[in-house]
Amino acid sequence: MDVRVLVGANTKRLRRLKGWSQEELAHQSGLHRTYVSGVERGVRNPTVTVLAELAKALDASPGEFFKEPS
Amino acid sequence: MDVRVLVGANTKRLRRLKGWSQEELAHQSGLHRTYVSGVERGVRNPTVTVLAELAKALDASPGEFFKEPS
Repeated sequence: MDVRVLVGANTKRLRRLKGWSQEELAHQSGLHRTYVSGVERGVRNPTVTVLAELAKALDASPGEFFKEPS
Repeated sequence: MDVRVLVGANTKRLRRLKGWSQEELAHQSGLHRTYVSGVERGVRNPTVTVLAELAKALDASPGEFFKEPS
C-alpha cells in the first residue's frame, strides 16, 4: 500500500476516534481543511513536522500513522 | 524533542544496526548522502514517501523512526 494512502487511512481512523470532523482536526492542528482532506485521501505527502502536528492534535504518536490495517 | 531530531536519531540507530555507512544507506535508499546526513542531524524535514524509502532500505517499518529513545 502506498504510504500516503496508509497515513491517510490512519489519520481518518484517529480523527473518527476523537469524533471530529476534518474541519475540527484542521482547526486543532493548525492546518487547512483542504490539506487535511488531501492527507486523508492519500494525495498529500506530509512531512514529519506536519505528522507531529496532526499526532499532537489527535493525542497519538506519529508512529500510529503507519499502523498496517488489521 | 523536535520530531526531526527524533527521526534522525532513529535513522542513525537503524543504519548502525545494519552496519552501514551513510553512503551505503544513501545508495540503498536512492537518496543523496548529504540528504541522509541532514536527516540524521535533524535538520531535514523528510516526507512520508522519503521515510518509506529509508524504512524499506533498512528493513524497518516507518513507525520505527518515531520510537522514543529508551
